[in-house]
Order: sequence, then structure tokens, then C-alpha cells
Amino acid sequence: MAANGLIDAALRTWEQGVGRATKLFGRLDEQALEREIAPGKNRLIYLYGHLIAVSDAMIAQLRLGERLHPEYDDLFLKAADRTVALPPAAELKVAWDKVHETLRVEMAKLTAEEWTERHAVVSEEDFAKEPHRNRFTLLLGRSGHLAYHLGQAVLVK
Amino acid sequence: MAANGLIDAALRTWEQGVGRATKLFGRLDEQALEREIAPGKNRLIYLYGHLIAVSDAMIAQLRLGERLHPEYDDLFLKAADRTVALPPAAELKVAWDKVHETLRVEMAKLTAEEWTERHAVVSEEDFAKEPHRNRFTLLLGRSGHLAYHLGQAVLVK
Repeated sequence: MAANGLIDAALRTWEQGVGRATKLFGRLDEQALEREIAPGKNRLIYLYGHLIAVSDAMIAQLRLGERLHPEYDDLFLKAADRTVALPPAAELKVAWDKVHETLRVEMAKLTAEEWTERHAVVSEEDFAKEPHRNRFTLLLGRSGHLAYHLGQAVLVK
Repeated sequence: MAANGLIDAALRTWEQGVGRATKLFGRLDEQALEREIAPGKNRLIYLYGHLIAVSDAMIAQLRLGERLHPEYDDLFLKAADRTVALPPAAELKVAWDKVHETLRVEMAKLTAEEWTERHAVVSEEDFAKEPHRNRFTLLLGRSGHLAYHLGQAVLVK
């Protein structure tokens, strides 16, 4: 069935991005995470937390269960870098692993039909008019978001 | 049929990235394209050509027809920035539009089954063992590649 192959492709693409980011951020210590992606731009530690917050939100947005770290939204989505105190790197690494493991396990359970169901950011009324606002589109969008910031993170020497 | 919804999602994600890049690069003149994404890193003009070369290669990799600009590979894939003379921005803008219009038209013709067929970078023998190396995976990978470099291009003030 073609649909299963398409979903497999999307999950592989997502996992590939997660794997690259796990490797890139995982080998950096607290000091290395203080570096900026470019002069005056976000620090790596902020980018790391930002990616965790966005992935964590996916758990709810894909309607896979309760989020693990809703408290990160204030730090990494609503606040800009250098405006609030951030958690230590060790805490972020644990959160990174747990969030992405949860997504991996739960996303693997979705059927092709379920992938084309609405995501939680869109209302049922709006989804009836715009059926492309489904779980699958959200996954592809978040894969792109991850790649976007990976492209920035690799600029740090 | 679920498969069509999944393909629609992937094409929308691709077109969204192309649209963002069209807007970002399209409004820059020759001088603005000389700026670097970060100190000592690639100039925007190189990134622009690099994205055209990668998209142009997709025409052949997705087995949609003949490439339009194979000559860009030497300039934007094999050569690093600042090592060879690059075409003027006006030429790149024409190439950008033609390449992405070709992809848009040709990709729209593919059926779900055709999306799960092998792409041209993998041999038939290898594809038999690794069926995930299909057209769809290539499209998702290239969408990620585009997002990766968009994340860099936006760092330029």
C-alpha cells in the first residue's frame, strides 16, 4: 500500500533530523552551548531548548497525549534568548531524549488514515474547509523547522 | 484515499519552502547577494545558486526529464564559494523560476504509486533491498535541505 511507504519516508526524514540534532547538541557542554549561531543571534542553548519546546508541543498537536514540558514554552517560545534564566544543559539533554522517544513511540502507532486527520491546532470547522491541515502536514512542517535551525547550529565553529 | 492527502501535504511543504526562498532571494540585488550568512561563511549568491543546482538535479533524480542547468553543478556543488566566477544574479533568478516551475508541473503528474518508486540516485538492485529510497523520500530530503539553508539565509541582516 503506497500510503504506508509515504509515512515511512516522512518518519525516516524526521528521525534523521532528530538524529543529527541529537549528535550535534549532545556533544556540547554547558560552555560550548553558550556560543552564538552568528554575532548577536541566538545561543545554541536557546536553540536547543527551542527545538525541545517545539517537539514537546507536537505531542499535543498531533493528539498523541499529554505534553512533558509545557513550562518550556515561556522560556523558549515566548521569551527571546538572554531575557530569562534557562535550565542547565543536563536537564535539557534528558528532556530532549524523553520528548523524542515519546514522539517516536506514539507516531509509530498512527495509521495512514489517522495521519490525514486534523491536528489539534486547527478547529473541526476550519479543518472541514482546509483538510490539508492534518497531522502529516504538521510533521512535515516540524521536520522543516528542525532542519532550518540545524542549518543555523552548524555555523558555530 | 489517504495516499493522495499525504502527497498533497508533501507538495505543499515543498512549495512553501520554495515560496519563502523566492521571496527572500528575489528581493535582493547583486550587492545584497554578496553578503555572507555569517563571518567567513558562504555568500547569499552562492547559497542561491546552490539551491538552484540542487533543485535542478531533482528533475533528473525524480526521473521527470532532462535537467535545465547541469552546468551549475561545477559552480555550486563541486566548487566552494569564492573559488570560481558565478553567473549574474539576473541569470540565477530566471533559472530559479524555470527550475521550480518545471518541478511544480512535473511533480503534480506523479501518482501515489509513482512516488514510492525508486529515485534515480539508487540502482535497481539497491532499491530492491532498500525500498525507502524512493522519489517521496528524496522530495522530503530536499525540502529539508531547502529549510536548512533558509535558516542560514535569514541570519543576514
